[in-house]
Amino acid sequence: MKKVRAAIVGYGNIGRYVLEALQAATDFEIAGVVRRAGAEDCPAELREYPVVKNIKDLQSVDVAILCTPTRKVEEYAKEILALGIHTVDSFDIHTGIPALRRTLDAVAKAHNTVAVVSAGWDPGSDSIVRTLLEAIAPKGITYTNFGPGMSMGHTVAVKAVEGVKAALSMTIPTGTGIHRRMVYIELKDGYDFDKVAAAIKADPYFVNDETHVKLVSSVDALLDMGHGVNLTRKGVSGKTQNQLFEFNMRINNPALTAQVLVCVARAAMRQQPGCYTMVEIPVIDLLPGEREEWIGHLV
Amino acid sequence: MKKVRAAIVGYGNIGRYVLEALQAATDFEIAGVVRRAGAEDCPAELREYPVVKNIKDLQSVDVAILCTPTRKVEEYAKEILALGIHTVDSFDIHTGIPALRRTLDAVAKAHNTVAVVSAGWDPGSDSIVRTLLEAIAPKGITYTNFGPGMSMGHTVAVKAVEGVKAALSMTIPTGTGIHRRMVYIELKDGYDFDKVAAAIKADPYFVNDETHVKLVSSVDALLDMGHGVNLTRKGVSGKTQNQLFEFNMRINNPALTAQVLVCVARAAMRQQPGCYTMVEIPVIDLLPGEREEWIGHLV
Repeated sequence: MKKVRAAIVGYGNIGRYVLEALQAATDFEIAGVVRRAGAEDCPAELREYPVVKNIKDLQSVDVAILCTPTRKVEEYAKEILALGIHTVDSFDIHTGIPALRRTLDAVAKAHNTVAVVSAGWDPGSDSIVRTLLEAIAPKGITYTNFGPGMSMGHTVAVKAVEGVKAALSMTIPTGTGIHRRMVYIELKDGYDFDKVAAAIKADPYFVNDETHVKLVSSVDALLDMGHGVNLTRKGVSGKTQNQLFEFNMRINNPALTAQVLVCVARAAMRQQPGCYTMVEIPVIDLLPGEREEWIGHLV
Repeated sequence: MKKVRAAIVGYGNIGRYVLEALQAATDFEIAGVVRRAGAEDCPAELREYPVVKNIKDLQSVDVAILCTPTRKVEEYAKEILALGIHTVDSFDIHTGIPALRRTLDAVAKAHNTVAVVSAGWDPGSDSIVRTLLEAIAPKGITYTNFGPGMSMGHTVAVKAVEGVKAALSMTIPTGTGIHRRMVYIELKDGYDFDKVAAAIKADPYFVNDETHVKLVSSVDALLDMGHGVNLTRKGVSGKTQNQLFEFNMRINNPALTAQVLVCVARAAMRQQPGCYTMVEIPVIDLLPGEREEWIGHLV
């Protein structure tokens, strides 16, 4: 069977885990890696693959897995779709998803390609669970509780505050979709902790949440890529109240994002031209091989 | 917006809950109910609807929701698909699903209709969760633990044993997909409890499970339609071990089955001709209204 040729675009934290997930998936072939530095200072694990600055320099790529910062997704996706290559990304600004989907849908259709946006775990696999639960208990409330785990976005926001040398923002669930922020920082010389802590708490990222700032001697010693979700829905099926549902996970964050990207890259090969979110794709398309075998096994 | 006209075929326990779920769904219209007795001895809640013996006597039905016994599904579905009406069912013999899907696929395609099979909660909504978890942690083990709750199939099997007057078989999860069977019976006069209990334990439905048979004075006093699932997967994403996932629900069994049937009837209207299981349908098609609105809200 012909393997799917995938390119990894961007080689940061997620890109590294995508490499592992592609190596573990027997139906994929790694067409190469696109990074700003090209082959310069190339990490050892990439030596057996083409490493380039521009995806045009890779051979017959079927699908590009975008591991760039979220804000770069649209730009890269448009360019790559126009080359006739499918794209998948884990764009994670929830409010920006409908607009991105609309934009990429036009580009994808014009170039006979498929884009799948926001294919991580939230948005992504959690969205499938939320949608399913909304359908099978149409009245009710869903709460998505995150953590405990590191929030990338909040950590970046803390690092931008003057006087902060190193930072980690942990998301702690307190139930019903409400979260506490535990912020751990190292201070630059000559800064006053109380003033820096007040500036962090006043930041738009934190101003609406219960936020605690702690001074530590080493932020690095606290870093852990584990994360979690507890998603609950209590609702009504037909006219029957009190239907209770719960989805939990405790996972390595970038490893799960990368695995979702890879199985969605496979699914992209099976869709009609256009742009999709994960809830618009049959879950069985995420799996390798033949539908009928999986149906006998999983349904 | 034009409403979907649905017929309820079979008016037992599931049929009653389907009626409620259709009444609660504003995008549906009840075309009528098909029951063996026709309008004779018609329950009060059906008085405002056409009640007939044959679906041909109902007006412009879009989709038939089959609430017949599982073993009657194929026969009814074939007949109704051939009339140009979509069908959905909750066929629940896991090993028979691929064959049923193949048979109905040919019939549905020949008549330009859609059939969705095994659309309950297991098989059904659980199958979507199992498939999703298989994709995002491709190596590992999934355990589906059922209950505590009444098993319809096992209860019917007990009732068929000579000497049993009334019966209830409860499924009790003991973890890792292993279940204990708690069987409560009333005895017919002149039968010996120990012999009847031994016959139950020797039945193919029970012979491989830890089974306890209890004599009670009233089985009816024990009946409760609550059921539950605890579905777990521990697996590997890419090369990262120990990814932990869990899906739990505590639900009214027939109410959930009925709600799944109704949202799948909606989805059937949106598929190309052929036969599907739920994992082959995008979850967003289960919801009423416009895709883009839900995407902004749920993804």
